[in-house]
Amino acid sequence: MISHREQSAVTVLGLGPMGRALAGAFLDAGLPLTVWNRTPGTGREVVERGAFGAGSPEEAVAASGLTVICVVNYDAADAVVRRGTVTEALKGRTVVNLTADTPDRARDTAAWAAEHGIGYLDGAIMTPTPTIGTPAAVFLHSGPAELYQKHRPVLEALGGTHTHLGEDIGRAAAYDIALLDIFWTAMTGYAHALAVARTEGITARELAPFAKGIGAVLPPLFGQGAQDVDDGRFSGEGNPITSAVSSMAHIVRWSESHGIEAGVMRAAEGLARRAIGRGHGTDGFLRITEILNPRGAER
Amino acid sequence: MISHREQSAVTVLGLGPMGRALAGAFLDAGLPLTVWNRTPGTGREVVERGAFGAGSPEEAVAASGLTVICVVNYDAADAVVRRGTVTEALKGRTVVNLTADTPDRARDTAAWAAEHGIGYLDGAIMTPTPTIGTPAAVFLHSGPAELYQKHRPVLEALGGTHTHLGEDIGRAAAYDIALLDIFWTAMTGYAHALAVARTEGITARELAPFAKGIGAVLPPLFGQGAQDVDDGRFSGEGNPITSAVSSMAHIVRWSESHGIEAGVMRAAEGLARRAIGRGHGTDGFLRITEILNPRGAER
Repeated sequence: MISHREQSAVTVLGLGPMGRALAGAFLDAGLPLTVWNRTPGTGREVVERGAFGAGSPEEAVAASGLTVICVVNYDAADAVVRRGTVTEALKGRTVVNLTADTPDRARDTAAWAAEHGIGYLDGAIMTPTPTIGTPAAVFLHSGPAELYQKHRPVLEALGGTHTHLGEDIGRAAAYDIALLDIFWTAMTGYAHALAVARTEGITARELAPFAKGIGAVLPPLFGQGAQDVDDGRFSGEGNPITSAVSSMAHIVRWSESHGIEAGVMRAAEGLARRAIGRGHGTDGFLRITEILNPRGAER
Repeated sequence: MISHREQSAVTVLGLGPMGRALAGAFLDAGLPLTVWNRTPGTGREVVERGAFGAGSPEEAVAASGLTVICVVNYDAADAVVRRGTVTEALKGRTVVNLTADTPDRARDTAAWAAEHGIGYLDGAIMTPTPTIGTPAAVFLHSGPAELYQKHRPVLEALGGTHTHLGEDIGRAAAYDIALLDIFWTAMTGYAHALAVARTEGITARELAPFAKGIGAVLPPLFGQGAQDVDDGRFSGEGNPITSAVSSMAHIVRWSESHGIEAGVMRAAEGLARRAIGRGHGTDGFLRITEILNPRGAER
């Protein structure tokens, strides 16, 4: 027996760190909010701040026209909503799935939603939890434009910038994995650099100001590099891939001779050496995009 | 017979892309300049702009009290200066070696210089060639403070910021490999992300604005992370390493199922899984610094 029909503007399923941040932003915006989490007790502070803590996912989704899901992956999301009574309760309502996963999973969930008369938008959150509710937050959305426009005012209560990437439901997830690829690879590079610096007694605090400087040179290089990659031009003028390989080899040798594994850099160096082996030694480093691309690799 | 004694303020050995940028900045600053490159003809534009093009490295180093070397690595640098007549001509003069290599090589070259009465500073250039001569350039130096102070005015003609990291001659090279570790790892992540995006028809130009956004979140995370690593605190509040591993697994699966190798991310994921396996699943991602550190790994 579901007693709380449409009492809220929005429901949040999942109260992990990101789910709590989303819920907090909705509360800050003064929106009536319903929440539910698989593990009871988690996110108690959200309920203390005025959210209605539903006793079941059925009750939670029935309380609002819009349900935002943010759990660890689509297996976890499916386990909550793709069950008879919850699916039934969602009929005629909208789900915005901000859980991170791959485009195929987004398409699969969209197909399930369509089959059950549920409005479905897929989304991705590109910034860490502390940005939620602030101008620094970045949200990506994909799916039916009309549905997005309808729920946009509530979603914008989460702060930051919201971009609708198009009707292709897999688009947000595709951007998400590509952008997280950059993020986690770079963070791994930073962790490795800190270990390398430590071999010479350099503390993380000593390296950090210069590491930040490296971080600052990346965005303009990403912008220039994008044009090169799209146009198939890889000018190595000023920084040929042979020079990159020389640095990479130094890093691998130094790391391994100090007991620090260098599997990430070894793999990166291997890609660069393959580009050189195919005659692209005077090209710029982003030539490796073609080595990685299964069609490009045939060239 | 060396005829051009001390006719210049500074000599540049090596006229690859970076050597030419350094020479150009010295000329822009109005400093009398001597240059030499192993392959004759390279850097002709520098001579056309007024630099003296020496006929041999002996002649080049004898023309100035200060010689700046910028070649591909220390093997190449040694092949030029660690030969009887060149070493002789350098006696009583100063070498600033801006060639990139590892701390042990810097120490070895410093020992050679000391043995032959040559002043020696080691350095590293942390920004790309177009930054040279502009405020965006970043130079790191290590070695005797007195020697650095003496030649600082000439070095500052290269523009940007110059930091003396201390008397330990290996310091600049250690920062260099650590910072290049971040840089090349991140660039590899970007190239991989572009290949991943292409599986869904997303162009590099479409991804780039968001990739730049990822680049922009890195510096503050580097700063916060440095404190955590130095203090041995790895709070996963808001973003535990288990959540990182979930994203990494998505990236690996998606890439490989689309014919894109994922060796870099596989290696990164492996480090994160080892941290989880050691009971650090609720820690933040930079816990992997301890997994990488040979002493930390024993903990």
